[in-house]
Amino acid sequence: AEKLTRPEFRPRALFEQFKITVLATTDDPVDDLAPHAALAADESFTGRVIPTFRPDKYLEAGRPDFPALTDALGEAAGVDVSTYDGYHEAMRTRRLYFRDHGAVSTDHAHIDPGTARLSDEDARRLYTAARAGDIGADDAVALRRHMLGDQARLASEDGLVLTIHPAVLRNHSDEMFEKFGADVGFDIPVAVDYVHHIRPMLNDVGHHPNFRTVLFTIDETVLSREIAPLAGVYPSVFAGAPWWFIDSPDAILRYRRAVSETLGYTRTSGFIDDTRAFCSIPARHDMSRRLDATHLAGLVAEHRIRLEDAQELVTTLPDQQPREVFRLGAAGEKN
Amino acid sequence: AEKLTRPEFRPRALFEQFKITVLATTDDPVDDLAPHAALAADESFTGRVIPTFRPDKYLEAGRPDFPALTDALGEAAGVDVSTYDGYHEAMRTRRLYFRDHGAVSTDHAHIDPGTARLSDEDARRLYTAARAGDIGADDAVALRRHMLGDQARLASEDGLVLTIHPAVLRNHSDEMFEKFGADVGFDIPVAVDYVHHIRPMLNDVGHHPNFRTVLFTIDETVLSREIAPLAGVYPSVFAGAPWWFIDSPDAILRYRRAVSETLGYTRTSGFIDDTRAFCSIPARHDMSRRLDATHLAGLVAEHRIRLEDAQELVTTLPDQQPREVFRLGAAGEKN
Amino acid sequence: AEKLTRPEFRPRALFEQFKITVLATTDDPVDDLAPHAALAADESFTGRVIPTFRPDKYLEAGRPDFPALTDALGEAAGVDVSTYDGYHEAMRTRRLYFRDHGAVSTDHAHIDPGTARLSDEDARRLYTAARAGDIGADDAVALRRHMLGDQARLASEDGLVLTIHPAVLRNHSDEMFEKFGADVGFDIPVAVDYVHHIRPMLNDVGHHPNFRTVLFTIDETVLSREIAPLAGVYPSVFAGAPWWFIDSPDAILRYRRAVSETLGYTRTSGFIDDTRAFCSIPARHDMSRRLDATHLAGLVAEHRIRLEDAQELVTTLPDQQPREVFRLGAAGEKN
Repeated sequence: AEKLTRPEFRPRALFEQFKITVLATTDDPVDDLAPHAALAADESFTGRVIPTFRPDKYLEAGRPDFPALTDALGEAAGVDVSTYDGYHEAMRTRRLYFRDHGAVSTDHAHIDPGTARLSDEDARRLYTAARAGDIGADDAVALRRHMLGDQARLASEDGLVLTIHPAVLRNHSDEMFEKFGADVGFDIPVAVDYVHHIRPMLNDVGHHPNFRTVLFTIDETVLSREIAPLAGVYPSVFAGAPWWFIDSPDAILRYRRAVSETLGYTRTSGFIDDTRAFCSIPARHDMSRRLDATHLAGLVAEHRIRLEDAQELVTTLPDQQPREVFRLGAAGEKN
Repeated sequence: AEKLTRPEFRPRALFEQFKITVLATTDDPVDDLAPHAALAADESFTGRVIPTFRPDKYLEAGRPDFPALTDALGEAAGVDVSTYDGYHEAMRTRRLYFRDHGAVSTDHAHIDPGTARLSDEDARRLYTAARAGDIGADDAVALRRHMLGDQARLASEDGLVLTIHPAVLRNHSDEMFEKFGADVGFDIPVAVDYVHHIRPMLNDVGHHPNFRTVLFTIDETVLSREIAPLAGVYPSVFAGAPWWFIDSPDAILRYRRAVSETLGYTRTSGFIDDTRAFCSIPARHDMSRRLDATHLAGLVAEHRIRLEDAQELVTTLPDQQPREVFRLGAAGEKN
Repeated sequence: AEKLTRPEFRPRALFEQFKITVLATTDDPVDDLAPHAALAADESFTGRVIPTFRPDKYLEAGRPDFPALTDALGEAAGVDVSTYDGYHEAMRTRRLYFRDHGAVSTDHAHIDPGTARLSDEDARRLYTAARAGDIGADDAVALRRHMLGDQARLASEDGLVLTIHPAVLRNHSDEMFEKFGADVGFDIPVAVDYVHHIRPMLNDVGHHPNFRTVLFTIDETVLSREIAPLAGVYPSVFAGAPWWFIDSPDAILRYRRAVSETLGYTRTSGFIDDTRAFCSIPARHDMSRRLDATHLAGLVAEHRIRLEDAQELVTTLPDQQPREVFRLGAAGEKN
C-alpha cells in the first residue's frame, strides 16, 4: 500500500516501466469510450491503449434483460432496434465507433462457437420474439449463432479481427453465483467442436480478404485435431495462444508441440496475455518468451530446425507476430 | 505353489511384509461384513482392513433383477423398499452399517457420472415402475442419475467420501460375456463429460462441509479441461489418481503435468492402487512414488519449485495426502 | 525436370532404389485393375505392387450419383444390383476380384466408423429407396453403417484386412470445393467415437479367426482411451500408425507413449506411409524408424525395457510387423 503511493508505482509509470507497446481493454458495445478518447488526446501519455468490442450479452437472446440491452444498444447507436435489421445496423454502427477509437478486434465468448445461419425471415421472427421476452431456449441459441455469423459479416466489412474464446460453462455453482456474482472462479471449461460450428461462418466469409479470426481454446484436444488443420488451410484463421487454465508452462509447451507440426509459427497469434492483473503482464510475457525459446531450442537440439530460424522466430513471435495478426501496424505507431 | 504353503506367504504375513497401513475392499451393500467384523475383533491381527460401499447395481433401475436386488436391499436394511422413500431409507441404513464397520467411502461406476435430479414425484413414479419391471431405457437412466445425486446427499449426512469411476462400457463383446461373464477384459473406456453431469450434485451438496467427492477418469482429456478446474474451485472435489488403463508410467507423468498447473498437489487423491491382485500392491505403490519423485525432480531441475518443497511433497503425497482425502485419521489408527 | 528424363529417375528405377518391397495403390471397386495385371505379368519388374479395395462412395447411399455408381458396380461384377442382396453379392464378387489381383486389404473412410446393423428388411427397403434417389439423410447414414458392417462380414469370408480411416469432414469450404474440387486441403478432422461405433461389427465378426481390422485416427484422444484397449483385447483389432496430420515427429512419439503401455508393439500396424507422393516414401519410412528407435531408446535409458528387446523391436516394427498384420507373406514373396 505504501508503494502504491509512490510516483514510480502509478499506472502510467508502470506502463512505461513494463515497456507495454499496446494494451487492449475489453468494453461494452454501448460504452462511449470517453476514457479512451481522453487518453488518446492526452499528449503527456504516449502509450497505446485501445478498446475491444465485446458484445456477448447482446447476442444472448434468451437473457431476461435482452430487451433492455438491445434498447441500450439502439440508443448508443442512434438506431431503432425494434427489428433485426435495426439491431444489425446498430451493431455495425457501434463496431465502427469502436474502430474509430482505435479498436482492432472484437471478442466473443459463448458456450459454443456456433455460427449456423437462419433464414433472414427466421432471424427476424426470433429477434422479435426475443425482444418481447418470448423466445424458447433452443431458439435463443439458434439466434445467437446467427448473430455471431453476422458479427463475422460485419468483420469482413470493417476489418476488426474476430477472436473466439468459447466453451466455458460460466457460474457452475448456483450458490456462489447468488452469493458473489459472476467471475469468482466457478467457470469450468467444456469440450468444444470448432469444425462444425464455425463452418457456416467460414463458408460465408472465410475467404474474404478483409476477414480474420483467431481461435482460442482451453480444450486441448482441438489443438492438433481441429485448430491446426483449420488455421493451416483457411487464410483467415489463426490459432490463438494458450488461454486461462492452460496459460502455464507445461500447457504452453504442449500447445507448441500440438500445433507446430501442422501449422508452423506464423499462423499462430503470438502471445496475448489476456489478464486482468496489470502487474502480472511483464511476468506473463517473460514466461511465454522463455517457453517459446525452450520449445525452439529443443527443435534446434534435435536438428529439426536451424539455429538461425529459431533465433529469428524467438524475436518475431512475441512482437511482429501479434502485431501482424491483429493489424496493429508497425511498432511505435499510435492509433 | 510350493511358496504359497510357507508361513511367510500367508496373506497376513504378506500384509505385514508389504507394510500396508490400510486396505479397503469393495463390498455389496447387502453384505453383512462378517469377515470385516471378525478381522476387526481379532486381536492377533493389527492391520486395518475396511469395507467400501459399492451400490452400482442397486442404482441401475433397468436391470431385469432390479426388483430382486431392491428386495434384498430392503431385507438387509430391515426397511420396506416398495417406495422410493423406503429405498432411500434402506440406502441410508446400509451406508451407516458400512460406516460402523469402518468404511470411509462409497464407490460408483456408471457409464456416465450423471446426477441430474428428478422431481420427488417423478422419482417415486419411476422407482415404482422399475420395481414392477416396467421402466423404459431412458427413464432408467434418469432414475439412476437421480439416485446417484441422492447418494451424494447421504454422503453429506454420513461423511463417506463419494468416489466416481465412470465411463467404461462394460462387456463390449456379447460373445465373451455369454461365454465367460463379466470382468474378462472387454471393458472399454468412453469419453466422459464431468462438467455438466456432476453440476446438479455440486449445486446440491458441493459446498456442504461434510461432503467430499473424488473424480477418477480414464479419458485423459478431462484432466486439464474439467477435473483440475473443478477440483481447483470446489472445496469438496478432489482429482483421483490415474486409474486402470492409465495407471502406468507415462500416463501417470502426463496426469501430473495435466493437473498440477491448475490444481497443485494437495487437491489430488494421492495414490490409490485399485488392484485386485494382492501381491501387486507394493510394486504399484513403489512405481507411483518413483513417478511422483520423477515429476517433482523435473520441476526442481527446471527451477520451478524448490528442492525442499519437492522433498516434502514426496513424503506427504503417498501417505498423508490419501489419509486426509479419505478421512482415514492419523497413521497407526485402527477403525 | 531435367532429372526426371534420366533413366535412374524413372518410376521403376526409383522403386528399386527406394528398396520398396510392397506398394499398395487405392482403387475403385469397378476398376478392372489391368495395370496391376500387366505389372504382375511383366517379368522385367520384380517389385510387388498390389491394389486396395476402396468402396467409400458405393456406401454413401445419399449421394445423388448412388444409382449410377451401383449400376456401374453391378456391371463390373456381372450381377443385378437392383436389390440389396444383389448389391451385397456384387461387393463380394469385386472384393474377390481384387484379392485375385493381389489385394490384401480394403480401406474405409467415412465421417464416422459406424457399423450399426439394420434388420435385413430395413436394409433392403432403404437400399431400394436409395436406388430410386429417394432416401433421407438419416436413413442414408443408417444404410451406410449397415453396409460397412457387411463389408466386415465379407472380410471374414475373404480375409481382406479392413482398415478404417474415419472422422474427417471433407470439403469443409464450399467455395474451394466448387472452384477446385476435392482433395485440395480443406479436409478437417473431427472427434471420433470408436467404442460404440464398431461394437456391432465386433459383436458380429470380432472373434472370427479370418477377420482383421486396423483402426486409424487423427483424433489423438482415442489412442489411450479407445484404440489401445480395443486392440489389447480383441484378437482381430490392431492400432493403425499415426496418419495424415499426425504423421509427424512429435505426434508419432505421442502415439507410441499413448498406446504402448496398454498395447505393447505387436498389436500396432507398423508404419504405413499412406502417401500420394512417391518420392516421399523413403524419407517417411526413415523418419518413422528413427522415431520408433528414439522411443525405444528412451525406454531403455529409463530401464523400462531391455536393450535386446528394443533392438529386436527396432528391426521387426518396420518390416515383419506390417507384413504380418496385412497378411503379406514372407519378404520377397510376389503375389
